[in-house]
Amino acid sequence: MSSKRRIVVLNGPNLNLLGSREPEIYGHTTLADISRDVSAAADKLDLSVDFQQSNNEGEMVSAIQAARGTAAGIIINAAAYTHTSVAILDALLASDIPVIEVHLSNIFKREEFRHHSYVSKAATGVICGFGAKGYLLAIDAMAELLNRTQSK
Amino acid sequence: MSSKRRIVVLNGPNLNLLGSREPEIYGHTTLADISRDVSAAADKLDLSVDFQQSNNEGEMVSAIQAARGTAAGIIINAAAYTHTSVAILDALLASDIPVIEVHLSNIFKREEFRHHSYVSKAATGVICGFGAKGYLLAIDAMAELLNRTQSK
Amino acid sequence: MSSKRRIVVLNGPNLNLLGSREPEIYGHTTLADISRDVSAAADKLDLSVDFQQSNNEGEMVSAIQAARGTAAGIIINAAAYTHTSVAILDALLASDIPVIEVHLSNIFKREEFRHHSYVSKAATGVICGFGAKGYLLAIDAMAELLNRTQSK
Amino acid sequence: MSSKRRIVVLNGPNLNLLGSREPEIYGHTTLADISRDVSAAADKLDLSVDFQQSNNEGEMVSAIQAARGTAAGIIINAAAYTHTSVAILDALLASDIPVIEVHLSNIFKREEFRHHSYVSKAATGVICGFGAKGYLLAIDAMAELLNRTQSK
Amino acid sequence: MSSKRRIVVLNGPNLNLLGSREPEIYGHTTLADISRDVSAAADKLDLSVDFQQSNNEGEMVSAIQAARGTAAGIIINAAAYTHTSVAILDALLASDIPVIEVHLSNIFKREEFRHHSYVSKAATGVICGFGAKGYLLAIDAMAELLNRTQSK
Amino acid sequence: MSSKRRIVVLNGPNLNLLGSREPEIYGHTTLADISRDVSAAADKLDLSVDFQQSNNEGEMVSAIQAARGTAAGIIINAAAYTHTSVAILDALLASDIPVIEVHLSNIFKREEFRHHSYVSKAATGVICGFGAKGYLLAIDAMAELLNRTQSK
Amino acid sequence: MSSKRRIVVLNGPNLNLLGSREPEIYGHTTLADISRDVSAAADKLDLSVDFQQSNNEGEMVSAIQAARGTAAGIIINAAAYTHTSVAILDALLASDIPVIEVHLSNIFKREEFRHHSYVSKAATGVICGFGAKGYLLAIDAMAELLNRTQSK
Amino acid sequence: MSSKRRIVVLNGPNLNLLGSREPEIYGHTTLADISRDVSAAADKLDLSVDFQQSNNEGEMVSAIQAARGTAAGIIINAAAYTHTSVAILDALLASDIPVIEVHLSNIFKREEFRHHSYVSKAATGVICGFGAKGYLLAIDAMAELLNRTQSK
Amino acid sequence: MSSKRRIVVLNGPNLNLLGSREPEIYGHTTLADISRDVSAAADKLDLSVDFQQSNNEGEMVSAIQAARGTAAGIIINAAAYTHTSVAILDALLASDIPVIEVHLSNIFKREEFRHHSYVSKAATGVICGFGAKGYLLAIDAMAELLNRTQSK
Amino acid sequence: MSSKRRIVVLNGPNLNLLGSREPEIYGHTTLADISRDVSAAADKLDLSVDFQQSNNEGEMVSAIQAARGTAAGIIINAAAYTHTSVAILDALLASDIPVIEVHLSNIFKREEFRHHSYVSKAATGVICGFGAKGYLLAIDAMAELLNRTQSK
Amino acid sequence: MSSKRRIVVLNGPNLNLLGSREPEIYGHTTLADISRDVSAAADKLDLSVDFQQSNNEGEMVSAIQAARGTAAGIIINAAAYTHTSVAILDALLASDIPVIEVHLSNIFKREEFRHHSYVSKAATGVICGFGAKGYLLAIDAMAELLNRTQSK
Amino acid sequence: MSSKRRIVVLNGPNLNLLGSREPEIYGHTTLADISRDVSAAADKLDLSVDFQQSNNEGEMVSAIQAARGTAAGIIINAAAYTHTSVAILDALLASDIPVIEVHLSNIFKREEFRHHSYVSKAATGVICGFGAKGYLLAIDAMAELLNRTQSK
Repeated sequence: MSSKRRIVVLNGPNLNLLGSREPEIYGHTTLADISRDVSAAADKLDLSVDFQQSNNEGEMVSAIQAARGTAAGIIINAAAYTHTSVAILDALLASDIPVIEVHLSNIFKREEFRHHSYVSKAATGVICGFGAKGYLLAIDAMAELLNRTQSK
Repeated sequence: MSSKRRIVVLNGPNLNLLGSREPEIYGHTTLADISRDVSAAADKLDLSVDFQQSNNEGEMVSAIQAARGTAAGIIINAAAYTHTSVAILDALLASDIPVIEVHLSNIFKREEFRHHSYVSKAATGVICGFGAKGYLLAIDAMAELLNRTQSK
Repeated sequence: MSSKRRIVVLNGPNLNLLGSREPEIYGHTTLADISRDVSAAADKLDLSVDFQQSNNEGEMVSAIQAARGTAAGIIINAAAYTHTSVAILDALLASDIPVIEVHLSNIFKREEFRHHSYVSKAATGVICGFGAKGYLLAIDAMAELLNRTQSK
Repeated sequence: MSSKRRIVVLNGPNLNLLGSREPEIYGHTTLADISRDVSAAADKLDLSVDFQQSNNEGEMVSAIQAARGTAAGIIINAAAYTHTSVAILDALLASDIPVIEVHLSNIFKREEFRHHSYVSKAATGVICGFGAKGYLLAIDAMAELLNRTQSK
Repeated sequence: MSSKRRIVVLNGPNLNLLGSREPEIYGHTTLADISRDVSAAADKLDLSVDFQQSNNEGEMVSAIQAARGTAAGIIINAAAYTHTSVAILDALLASDIPVIEVHLSNIFKREEFRHHSYVSKAATGVICGFGAKGYLLAIDAMAELLNRTQSK
Repeated sequence: MSSKRRIVVLNGPNLNLLGSREPEIYGHTTLADISRDVSAAADKLDLSVDFQQSNNEGEMVSAIQAARGTAAGIIINAAAYTHTSVAILDALLASDIPVIEVHLSNIFKREEFRHHSYVSKAATGVICGFGAKGYLLAIDAMAELLNRTQSK
Repeated sequence: MSSKRRIVVLNGPNLNLLGSREPEIYGHTTLADISRDVSAAADKLDLSVDFQQSNNEGEMVSAIQAARGTAAGIIINAAAYTHTSVAILDALLASDIPVIEVHLSNIFKREEFRHHSYVSKAATGVICGFGAKGYLLAIDAMAELLNRTQSK
Repeated sequence: MSSKRRIVVLNGPNLNLLGSREPEIYGHTTLADISRDVSAAADKLDLSVDFQQSNNEGEMVSAIQAARGTAAGIIINAAAYTHTSVAILDALLASDIPVIEVHLSNIFKREEFRHHSYVSKAATGVICGFGAKGYLLAIDAMAELLNRTQSK
Repeated sequence: MSSKRRIVVLNGPNLNLLGSREPEIYGHTTLADISRDVSAAADKLDLSVDFQQSNNEGEMVSAIQAARGTAAGIIINAAAYTHTSVAILDALLASDIPVIEVHLSNIFKREEFRHHSYVSKAATGVICGFGAKGYLLAIDAMAELLNRTQSK
Repeated sequence: MSSKRRIVVLNGPNLNLLGSREPEIYGHTTLADISRDVSAAADKLDLSVDFQQSNNEGEMVSAIQAARGTAAGIIINAAAYTHTSVAILDALLASDIPVIEVHLSNIFKREEFRHHSYVSKAATGVICGFGAKGYLLAIDAMAELLNRTQSK
Repeated sequence: MSSKRRIVVLNGPNLNLLGSREPEIYGHTTLADISRDVSAAADKLDLSVDFQQSNNEGEMVSAIQAARGTAAGIIINAAAYTHTSVAILDALLASDIPVIEVHLSNIFKREEFRHHSYVSKAATGVICGFGAKGYLLAIDAMAELLNRTQSK
Repeated sequence: MSSKRRIVVLNGPNLNLLGSREPEIYGHTTLADISRDVSAAADKLDLSVDFQQSNNEGEMVSAIQAARGTAAGIIINAAAYTHTSVAILDALLASDIPVIEVHLSNIFKREEFRHHSYVSKAATGVICGFGAKGYLLAIDAMAELLNRTQSK
């Protein structure tokens, strides 16, 4: 049985379409590709990854609640709910573990209504605009955050 | 087995109450009445109709995703989610099939917060204010859109 | 002498250019084409059509006033005046007959200043984004509105 | 030939409908009634009245220009153009004679977009909410203004 | 003992300075001059005038309350409280008698924060920009309003 | 001499009109009725009530200051001053005793300018929309608050 | 079988965490504690309580719909959905039974985006800032509302 | 018969007053003076000038439409309609020939509502603040624009 | 009898609490302490001080009016009325003597609604953030202003 | 030694890149090309040109200060500082010589934040959208301005 | 060698023009005059003054950084950078010594864009509107602040 | 001589203070520490780093211009200029090489005016909130971006 610290990677609505939807913005990589690459990278950092996707705001709230006490950190790409969900923000605020926000595209170069993020108010850090690479940067940053906390 | 092109007609939260809820605004027609009339009209236009209703934003996102590749068009009355759901907008943008937005009432004569629609950003056209008749106009317009595309 | 109910179809500024102006947005159909198709469709619904165009806000106000008592309904594509004319709104409010607003393009996908409509405040319903087909949907909706009223 | 000072009373779009349009707001008095009463009142104050109405912004601009040098004052109910016409404002600013703004209803109790007036920026005074009586108050105030100027 | 209907004319803060304060805006007439002229004019219209001034918002509220049941109408120049006092608005809304709002200057040509009036929401009509003459127009309009109501 | 803890119940402008003013919004109960009921309810909770009303912002400020050190809590319905008075807010912030805000009507269903409350920034809790019953709920809540503090 | 009138008490996202989440704001009481206390209080008022919690907006809409015809009133703490859900507002507007809005904390002293409530537009009254005591005040107020309606 | 390329110079409302209206802002030059000077300058650049003025928005729209196919460029000082006319903007967008916007005064140093221009959205370039000289600069710039296009 | 020029130092609502209220913001100095220090400082500058405090907006207006003609200058800390009182602004504008605005704290570092000051529009200068020392700076600045005026 | 009047032509940040940067917007002309053409044109108008470029706001301020007393006019293309620099505005306001603002592109057709110009508040006139030709129009306009002033 | 505590007095862009620029706003005193007077006043308070001016935002940032550890306080008139420089704000926030903000004119009586100050967010206190006297008040206030800190 | 691709890492105002300034936000790491760590990390990725800092907006513009043609990518922490500099944005837009934006803190959790970034409009991606670790993530992401481009 693995004794690695567990990281929940939570993906929001429509990210299951990755690879087929608007490839000129998001590229051809699928969510399964990302999951595989993140797990591999996490493994080298002595972390395990629980990779999830949901189209449902309430399910995402419950998933975040479930991470409390069972996971060491949350990496979240809340997709559209980034901009509208106070419920996800509240769940993250209650989670008491480090949160890293990821976006595939640079949301500040897209429509005005995508510039605001509720998730940012609960996140330690934000990474956006690097496509799938952003998840790898996030897992790297998460390892650093956990080490920093541990060594205090 | 039918070879008719399939149109998904997607109805949002509280539309299941149609006929009983605030009849002075929405009339006495039920959603079942509308479903029956739309199917009949579609049949004459050589279209089949898959008529759905959900109170749940995430379910609506999934239903739109499911329409990709399996349906020829989407007619959507997103009700309250019209004004708040970026997730439904994103699902529609990713659907790659014609989208027509319908509202029973003229939303521009109601409260200020009902004047803005995320759905409009992904819709080819918008029809509002004609009650149940709006669905029939939408199915008619959809047939036209599909013929236009086909004949290109 | 015709006993058909008369519908005034009122077109605003620059719509006389239809077919030559920015065809990538408005297509190649001319206003004369639309007039002919709307008349044909109206005829089947036992309605007659008085199809007009003006570049002049004041003339449009007068045309709406003239429709009071002489016409059964107004279908209006106020074009640019949609967004700026309180005078046309006031004339429509005073007209006491059903008003249907039509736009060729989906105005909610164009520039911000085209998202607001004064006409909508006086219209029973709005149809936009279906090109010339929108006028046919409007004449169909108008017939329905008049029957509904008649049968009360 | 009359040597009375001439006052132009200028009425904007849809005011020709007065007496029939939305009587619950504007009452049953017609514009002709008002014209007759204003003329009678003016006569007692040794003023003559040139009472005009137009649905056309450009015509109103021209009428204001025509008043320069030929009239002693302007009383204007610009109706809908009150809220949208910079052209009428500019014409009034150029007129160099006293301007009084009149509205039948209290525009500040109506829709938000009727609260702002371009005409007010060029008017000496404003009178609103007294129905047809407002015109009589205006002619009275105009007489006072002219006397005040004369006696300087 | 007088059987004339009583009109309360209520003047707000700083109006007691009239005649000395910023005469280039307000002129040299004092509040006592206005009181005398209004009383004379009222007398001819079979009205009596109770002319008051206060610098105190609460006193003005109480004065308006006192007018309920004892006076036939209120003419109010709330001065600075026009723009800030919801309490005076509430008192006027509760007064159940006609209210006319008066301002010496045209408030729409002054600073932006003087363009908004809470009093207007409770007033039948508004008169501004005519200096002391505005009070005379108001007493005339009040007589008209009372006659109109009486004759219903 | 009573050893009961004293609660100041402070009522703002126009509340003295209760029972006669706009009964369709506020009902027929008078402020005296409420005072009597609140005192009775307080008595059962071992509290005494000092019930006050003022139309004057400054008097309300002074009353709040007077409650410091002499009262155990403040229940305040600041009426119109709720929306405009920073002075009352400052007095409440300085009072160092629990403050409960009460409104007879649900202010969030009324005009936009009644949605904002300065008092809320200094209140432990807010109760609105229950008519006179709201005062009884407030006295109940106050007893709870005081017990909670006492038992710490 | 109980003949008591049934009250649905509906709790929104993250309220299941009560007692563990941010106790400095929400205290140590759990939702189960509140449920027990509310039921006890309801029992004395001859009411029964159906106490529910959901993280899911769509489920809350459905729960409100289910209360129509089966329950006498709704007490709702919509938590994060308070600020974002038009769907819950629409369901409440359609419910035709009294609605009371409750919040544990005083939302007006928290972040700006928590000051606006869609729920308030459908609620008879609002109670916030009293922690778990707020539910007891709400059940008391609900009893009063139901008696008032019954005795009409 | 002249083979010179024809430039339409279109002047908006109140510009016919030039030379008499507010000379402290606009100077003593009349529109006829400008017309004569522009024609002379154009002649040297092998251009002919069709100099027009209208107070009427609709006429200006029609004049712009008439320039399509018959003129090589449009120089427009839309005066007050600059700030309010979407109809003129639409006509210019449809004209498919170079458009230069001119203003006599520097509109950015005047009132706030004169800072926004719909015309700018359709103009190649803007020249303002140089009085009548601005028209000469515009004709010079137009010649350059036409040469540039021709030589491509 | 003193021939010193008299300065009115006017203090607004809640400043009478100084020394006890929120000492972490305002310190332990009382208003009496400040009064004594200001008088001593003024004496050295050949000025006398009339030190006043009021919780009442109307009284402050009257106090400012009373200063006209009897005092050489006004130093005002309007406290909460700084942000809400147009009446005090109007009284200051009418006072025709130098006005200096003082605040104990730096209002620009506090809540947003305390950043705006009506008093500033009538003040020669503003001093804030220096606690009680600010009054001494103000009396020093006032002496300078009066000397400057005198020596012209 | 030249007795020609000297004009400072001041170019802001990134204009040194002209000819290589985003040529689809700015073309292939370099700043050296423009300098040469402007000097040639100035020579014919009996003016000399001091052509400068800086990426540094402070240097531009100093350059404008240096122009006072030594130059007859300033032509400025402040590029990005147009939209953000109050310091340059203040320097221009203090310069006491004519200022003409130039932009290569039509800034009103670019991003929203480029629509506002601080420079315009200090400029006699503005020329934009004509590429390098704009500098030639500006030197022509400057000659006119100087002649006009001289001949007064 | 002086053992006096050193105060950096930092002056922003265009203040080197003092005495010549817009004297109707700023007077005829030069910056050298002010420097001399401030030094004299400081000397009496046992402080030394390092008086600097720069047109360059970056230089001002560096000057503030240089004051850390070497100076006891900063008096800053950032002029135009007051309204636009977050960099200067950040430098001041990092300086860890008292900061006093000075302006010659009352910035709240000038253009809207001069009402906002980034410097205020880092300043202990603000003094504006007293011309050169403001610097003397600031040096006096600085002495007080330093003594207060020292005596703690 | 190194053949490694060169990356310019550009640091804005006040970052030279890192390690001493507000350590509770930024930590104790100095810019020299970061420079050393970034160089080491870059070396492993076959990149060289040119690490720079400036307090001066114009110098930063020039540094970005210098990177064109000589560097393979830019990593920029523009600090305060992030929020105010259109000039830096324009320089980045003209640079034609990948840009990555870094911030030490999560700017979305700080003051409102730090939420907006001009730099983001020109950046491929944004990384913020991870302290010095963010630079390492950026160099990692840059390597990825360059490989991606190379392999196309």
